[in-house]
Amino acid sequence: MTDEYYMKQALTEAKKALSEDEVPIGAVIVCKDRIIARAHNLTETLTDVTAHAEMQAITMAANHLGAKYLTDCTLYVTVEPCVMCAGAIGWAQISKVVYGAKDEKRGFSLLAPNALHPKCTVQSDVLGEECAELITTFFKKKRG
Amino acid sequence: MTDEYYMKQALTEAKKALSEDEVPIGAVIVCKDRIIARAHNLTETLTDVTAHAEMQAITMAANHLGAKYLTDCTLYVTVEPCVMCAGAIGWAQISKVVYGAKDEKRGFSLLAPNALHPKCTVQSDVLGEECAELITTFFKKKRG
Repeated sequence: MTDEYYMKQALTEAKKALSEDEVPIGAVIVCKDRIIARAHNLTETLTDVTAHAEMQAITMAANHLGAKYLTDCTLYVTVEPCVMCAGAIGWAQISKVVYGAKDEKRGFSLLAPNALHPKCTVQSDVLGEECAELITTFFKKKRG
Repeated sequence: MTDEYYMKQALTEAKKALSEDEVPIGAVIVCKDRIIARAHNLTETLTDVTAHAEMQAITMAANHLGAKYLTDCTLYVTVEPCVMCAGAIGWAQISKVVYGAKDEKRGFSLLAPNALHPKCTVQSDVLGEECAELITTFFKKKRG
């Protein structure tokens, strides 16, 4: 399966978030060509700033594997991870991160460029336009 | 109540972690002179790298207040928050962070100095020696 295929799965999660009036960000974690976790942002529903898609996906993947470290896993997420999520990705030793849209204000590459594990590879701009459009449209509507 | 008083409460949490063979770090969140959340590191017990004391305390405090933002709250934690926790503290808009021991390798002040909310004040080295000793002793024993 291609990066685009898995990003589409993350986009499906982001659209679930949108339908729940959450900031539309979705994530999946893939291990040996199988999706072992799917999650979307739930900060409003759970009244919890820590409920980002990536955080939930990491917890789910660890539960699935029965292991804290996700060294053979790839995280696909529609928007560049924030500092919090990048820290969690680092602790989990995820080996590859693929994201769609860049987050110019809150992205980890600006605020915490060394948060990920040193061996982690990062691929950006996979279906980036589609991922960005979801977010842009959401915030435009919010602002009325 | 003084910062030392609340840090002692965080130390009590850290000692609970120690008794459960977890990295001994504890945290409490205080709002209007009341402790509204107490937590300790549970990464081993829960097989989850996101289960740091601060992350759990933030989720608990938000549940307690029924609000995502912890703008009038102070977080006391025995060790300097990591990047992940600093990101969460930033999202939660916590207004004051008091920590005990510095984390020279993984602390946010090294890796993500702008992760906290711009208005957040930080106080370090409150009962710092006692907080550091718990950690140092724990890792010495682990290494045999």
